[in-house]
Parts: sequence; structure tokens; C-alpha cells
Amino acid sequence: MALSIDYTNMFLPGAVTDADWEFAAGRFRAAHAAVMARVARGDLGFVDLPEDAALLRQTTDFVQRAGDRWEDVVILGIGGSALGPIALRTALRPHAWNTLSREERGGKPRLTVLDNVDPETIDAVMSRLHLERALFVVISKSGGTAETMAQYLIIRAALDERFGDRAKEHLVFVTDPAKGSLRPIATKEGIAALDIPPNVGGRFSVLTPVGVLPAALIGIDAGQLLAGAADMRRRCAGDDLAGNPAGTFALLQWLADDRHGKHNHVLMPYADPLRDFAAWFVQLWAESLGKVRKDGTHVGPTPIAALGTTDQHAQVQLFMEGPADKTITFVEVAGRTALGPIPKLYADVPDLAYLGGHSLGELLDAERRATAGALARRGRPNMTITLDAVDAWHVGALIFLLELATAYAGALYDIDAFDQPGVELGKQFTYAILGRPGSDAARAEWDQLPKPDPRRRV
Amino acid sequence: MALSIDYTNMFLPGAVTDADWEFAAGRFRAAHAAVMARVARGDLGFVDLPEDAALLRQTTDFVQRAGDRWEDVVILGIGGSALGPIALRTALRPHAWNTLSREERGGKPRLTVLDNVDPETIDAVMSRLHLERALFVVISKSGGTAETMAQYLIIRAALDERFGDRAKEHLVFVTDPAKGSLRPIATKEGIAALDIPPNVGGRFSVLTPVGVLPAALIGIDAGQLLAGAADMRRRCAGDDLAGNPAGTFALLQWLADDRHGKHNHVLMPYADPLRDFAAWFVQLWAESLGKVRKDGTHVGPTPIAALGTTDQHAQVQLFMEGPADKTITFVEVAGRTALGPIPKLYADVPDLAYLGGHSLGELLDAERRATAGALARRGRPNMTITLDAVDAWHVGALIFLLELATAYAGALYDIDAFDQPGVELGKQFTYAILGRPGSDAARAEWDQLPKPDPRRRV
Repeated sequence: MALSIDYTNMFLPGAVTDADWEFAAGRFRAAHAAVMARVARGDLGFVDLPEDAALLRQTTDFVQRAGDRWEDVVILGIGGSALGPIALRTALRPHAWNTLSREERGGKPRLTVLDNVDPETIDAVMSRLHLERALFVVISKSGGTAETMAQYLIIRAALDERFGDRAKEHLVFVTDPAKGSLRPIATKEGIAALDIPPNVGGRFSVLTPVGVLPAALIGIDAGQLLAGAADMRRRCAGDDLAGNPAGTFALLQWLADDRHGKHNHVLMPYADPLRDFAAWFVQLWAESLGKVRKDGTHVGPTPIAALGTTDQHAQVQLFMEGPADKTITFVEVAGRTALGPIPKLYADVPDLAYLGGHSLGELLDAERRATAGALARRGRPNMTITLDAVDAWHVGALIFLLELATAYAGALYDIDAFDQPGVELGKQFTYAILGRPGSDAARAEWDQLPKPDPRRRV
Repeated sequence: MALSIDYTNMFLPGAVTDADWEFAAGRFRAAHAAVMARVARGDLGFVDLPEDAALLRQTTDFVQRAGDRWEDVVILGIGGSALGPIALRTALRPHAWNTLSREERGGKPRLTVLDNVDPETIDAVMSRLHLERALFVVISKSGGTAETMAQYLIIRAALDERFGDRAKEHLVFVTDPAKGSLRPIATKEGIAALDIPPNVGGRFSVLTPVGVLPAALIGIDAGQLLAGAADMRRRCAGDDLAGNPAGTFALLQWLADDRHGKHNHVLMPYADPLRDFAAWFVQLWAESLGKVRKDGTHVGPTPIAALGTTDQHAQVQLFMEGPADKTITFVEVAGRTALGPIPKLYADVPDLAYLGGHSLGELLDAERRATAGALARRGRPNMTITLDAVDAWHVGALIFLLELATAYAGALYDIDAFDQPGVELGKQFTYAILGRPGSDAARAEWDQLPKPDPRRRV
């Protein structure tokens, strides 16, 4: 079991230099100390999750009681309450899980994530569910998430109509242990509820029941997920960069952005199971680092999700020849060995003949190496994270690496990586439009915005 | 049936100005003339596709002959050969099409797209298919796409083993009418083959059989797709910006990037069916515009896919407070009316009570307006494309709008939007690694690249 980062290709003319790196070691020590100070103050609960056996037990007890009752698990959640579960399902369950038969799923349920309020999607999902065998996991730390609460109201009414007093058996909340709107409802109505620790924010919550409960329900080994995270935590305990993968990742990205104009940070796994993992990273990196500094400057790299080899035929042209404003982080998985060699057919057709005898895993690996090399050759910095396998342990380690890197990056950028004040105005405007009591101030601001200009329409 | 763009919010301090717009009208006329000259020379075949009845007939004839024989249609294709079909399936078929029963699908087949060479995915798909009832659509204009050809070799061997001489009945190629490696194979072996016109490149090919054949096989009205595109073509025939949506879109994006540093162009539909459409746009915009100019400068905006409301909880914090380097294009769909009002429950819980009585469609619309308004309030330029519905006609119109906008943008950026020279080096390195005959020069260049430095590993 191993996870490593090769960052040779970050040291290129126009990208990171040896002088940067020497200067940066001190910056990193300060960032590490700042993060550890917040951990010591109890601000950054995500760091303690890998060893929180009591929290894990909430999930394992719930899953054990559930037995094989559920055919469908449906998450009502958005943002950090959806991206983690989706990433875990894609990474750690067989391909296209929800299309498999119950037998192919080993008796485990499907997992559907309602991460939007498009009425047609919710209508379609509800009309197809076998409601007797469906469990709804309502995920919101505050209970104030408009989208999730709207879904809950619709589903709750449907459950009440069908099951009356037994509706609550089809519900479990994942929410703050004490605060917010969902916890009192759970307590009053006797609905099962698991905890999101108060000091863990949504986008850092995948290793709480937010991600762990859905994962465990569909048969993923939650203990291994946490074990991998715990291992990465240990590796990153010190402020010596040479032994700290999260620190190395954060520092390289920050240097590339802050000193060399690499404002776009691409994450590009070469493995289908990690297809949705990049979207989880996009939220983590974007929402944590896209901030206003105390001095009023706006900072934050723009994360971009990609997939190899697929995006070699979509985004790589831009990465190669567009503005030199990007870093690319590949994720490589060693030993993709399913299937044998590509058959040797068409010996007389040059476009096909050379492929025979190689395996698809070799092709995947060759294309990743070729792309990384070509980018380096054109002065485009990149690094490669290597996992021994896509399994719960390695995914847990990768999650923790990127979460801790985000915390370090927050300190390097000199912003708070753990809030999201920029989305407040949009929420207030939504309340104003919908006429929520108490939104008069937002309504007044809303009414002063420029109206659509008919001359600016085509 | 209508599609319009409201770009009021593009005219903000720090974004596009009235002076820009006046200056730009002349630039647009020149760009329009340049594009029309290339159309007249026969370079830009995508412009003629909406009215190519003969090409459409290739598809409709094939689909008619196929009848109800197929339970699964599997595309072997990558990049432009995959993103279009995926986008059409998600946009124009019911939610989660491949999870539906045959009856729910109205007797139409599932559509699986193999857009990568991950061996585990291909293994999983092949092991689950009922091969007797599976049609494989091999899409590559050149027949030189390594990933697609590797898939073809594997699937061809499996078909040969199972069906012997009848293997070819399970295959259809979509390829160049004369050139490339696939066409001669089709001719020699009697495999059905549909045309990608020689003057239509991969990322502009969704309205050829590349997108139209898979769409028609799963029951999408291909004629309506082309009719919508034809309508947009007519609207964009002139060089008066006031009547040309594609020109307006291209010019606004170019001005925002070139004059005001808005290097990132977000496409953010507020409709689940358009979830994968944004990924199609990402390829179109990235691969077309990410180029080296004749003077050696590197240009090209970075397109970013997002989805509302979902990404309000993931990327919008960055769009609001991060660097002022983005434009956001919303896609709104009028009249999302499925489901009735949100039930009025929990009158005593403020976070839930205000939602009751509104519909999900209202909530979706309120959130989009609120987000657009909040972005404008913070000086972040945005525009909104409004579709009357997500149906074949409107999707066809939107496709053509963005394709033509890409052609205009190529002229505005002064680059060739129709090639992709930047991916050649990676291809050559792949050939070198795999030992393809004739790759000696690439091998020599490859061997000179810096090797992984053990000091740069953690």
C-alpha cells in the first residue's frame, strides 16, 4: 500500500525554481504551524476524523441494523453532501453500480444522489422507486440548505401519505449534533440521525457519516477508508517537506500560482473509477481558496476536472498550446491489469497493428507518460500522484492528502479556507425572491439591481 | 420555440463597456466575413449539416433497418466522438436512461459510451452485455485514434469468437467517406459505415452520424435536432450583431478575455438534462481556441463546466470572491413545471416554512436569478441563454449557436479554430513508448526528456 507524488516536472523554466523551493520551505513551516495551531484550538475537526472510532460506530451500527432491508438509498444533499458520496460510489463500487442487478450488487442497494432541484429529475426518481424498500438520507449540517430542505418536504409528504406513522423508518438525517433545523426534528419525531461534528465543514465532511454512511450502506469498507486517511495523517505530521505529501502538493500549487501565474490547477486521473473524484476536488479547492484577503485582494486558483486518456481529446490541446497558466496533476494507478493483451488483428493496417500484444493498462500508462512528457517538453508544469490501487485505503489516503493540502494552501494564500462568505448574497437574494420572512434588506438591494436591458438581448 | 441571450450583465465596470462594443462591431463584421469565406471555400462543413438531407438519410435508413433488434448500443469513441452522443442522451432521453427497463425505454436500446481505455470499465461492460443484442458503433474519422482502435480490436475479437462470419452484423463504423483506416476495412469486410464529411472535424461532428446515429437509435428525433440548428443558422446569416446570437456570444467572450482579463469562461445550465452538455462545450471551446498565434503568443480562454443550482455549493464561492477572471454563461429553461408545489410542512421551522407553496421550478429559477444578480452586484460579468424547453429542436439550435460562435471566436483570436496541433507530440511519444514502427524520431526526443528525479518525490 503506497501513495507517492513525483513532482520532477514542476521544476521547469517559467514554473517552480530551486530558489522558490528554498524560500518556500520556511513559508511551509509557518503554514504548517498555523494549521496545527488551529487543529489544537479544535477548529479543524476533519483532521481528527480518521481516528474517531465513536463516529465510525454510528455508521456501522446503523448499517448493521439496516441489514438487507433497502434496495435503494437516496441521498438528499448538495455540494459537500453530494460530491463525496458520488466520488466514493464511482471509485469503490463496480462500474455503473446503479445499472446492476441486486445479485450483481451482492445484495447491496443502489445509491442515487439528488444533488439538484430540477423537478423532472426528482419526479423521475420518485416515480421509479419501490418506496417500501427505499431509504432517504437527508444531509445538511445546518438544516438550512434550501435545495435539500425542499427535497425533504416533497419526499416527506410522499412518505407520510404512503406509510403514515412509519414514514420515519425510511429516513435518516446526517446533521449537526445539536444545532440547526434538522436535529430538533429528528429528536422530536424519533428519526435516526448521525453526526457531522460541529468543527467539520461541508466540503471537509466526506470522512464523517456524510460520506461514510452511504459508502458503508453500499458495501464499501469504511474502516479501510479511515485507515488510509490515518496513514496519510501520520505521514503529514511534521513540517519537513521531504516527508509531507500534503505540504508538498500545497506548496507547489501555491508557488506555481502566486509566483508564476499558473492560476488554473487541473486534476486529471488516469482511471475511470476516479472520474468523479476530480469533481469532489474541484469543490474542495475552489470553495476553500477562492476568497478575498484582508487587504481586499481576490485570490484563489481555479481547479479544473479532467480525465485521462479521455481529455487528451478535449482539453489537452489547450493545456499544451493555450496560455501558460496551468498546472496539471495526474493521478496514476499502478497495475491496471484487467483483460489480457489487445488481440493482434489487421497486421497490414499500421494504425491498428502496433497496438496488438500490448494491454489496455499499458496503453493507458503509455499515454499518461507521453502526455506528462509532452507537457513538460512545452514548459507546462505537472506532477503525478501514484496510487497502488483504487481501493478504500488509497482513496482515504488521497482524500486526506488533498484536504490537508487545502488547509495548508489557505495559510499560504493568507485566507480562511474554512468559510464561504461569497455565497451569502445569492442566498439572501433567493430568500428575497421567494418572500422568506426577514429578507426585507435583501429585497431592497435586489430591487436596486439593473433590470434586463432589452437592447442587450438577442 | 425560441432561444435568446440576455447579456445585460456583461456590461459592468471592469467588464465589457459601451466603447468596447462600438469598436467590436467592426471586428465582428471582419470575423463574420472571414468565417463566411471559409464556408464558401468548403472548409467548414459543419455549417452545412443542418440541411444535409442525404447525410441524415444515412442514419434514418440504418435505424429503420435495425428495427428493434438491439438492446444495447455501445459507442467506441473518444473526444468529439463521445461527448456529443453523451450530451444528447442526457439532454433528450429520460433521466438515467441506462437504468430503465426496456418497457420504460419504449423498446429503445440503452446507450453506453466507451470513451476511455480503462481495462476495468471495458471488462465490466463486456461481461454484462447480452452480446447477441448489442450493436457496436465505432467512431473515428481517421481510424487512427489509438484508444478507439484498441477497443475495436478487443471487441472485434470477442465478436469473431462468438459469431464468426456474422460478427460484422454487430458493427457499424462512422468514419471518413474515403480516407483513413476504417473505411477500407468496412468496404473489404462489408461492414456498415456512415459518413463524417471530410470537412467536418471531430468536435464539430455532433450533427453528423457521430451524434445523430446514436441519438436516432435511442429514439431522439434527429430531424428536429437539425431543424433547430437550421433555424439558428438562418438567424446567424448576417453580420449585424443585433440579430446574430452566435456572433454576440463570441464577441462578448472575446472582449471579456482579450480586453478585460476574463480568461475563464464558465457554462452553467440550470437544468439536469444539460449536465453533460457543458462538457461537450468544454471540448469545443478549449480545443478550438487554445492555440499558438502566428506571432508565437499563446491564447485561448479556459472553459469550465458547471451546473446550477448544484455548483452554487461548489464553484460559485470562487466565481464571486476569487480573482475577477471569469465570465459565467447561464442556460435557463423556461417552464420547468413537473411536480406541484412544495408541501407546506413545518410551519414553525423558518428554514423550511418559506419553501412551502413554491414549486421546485420556481426555486430553481429564483436561485439562478439570485446568483446572476449577486455576481453582477460583485462586478462579475454574466449572461443568460434562455431556451423554451430542453427538446431536440432547442438543443440543435444551442449546438449550432456554440459551434458557429467558436468559428467566429477563432477569427477574433486570430487562430485556426479547426486544427489541434498541440496533441501531436503526446501521440508521437505514445507511439514511441509502444514501439510503433516509424516513431524513431519521437523515441529520440522522448529519451532526452528529464527522467523522474528521486529528490523530487514524496
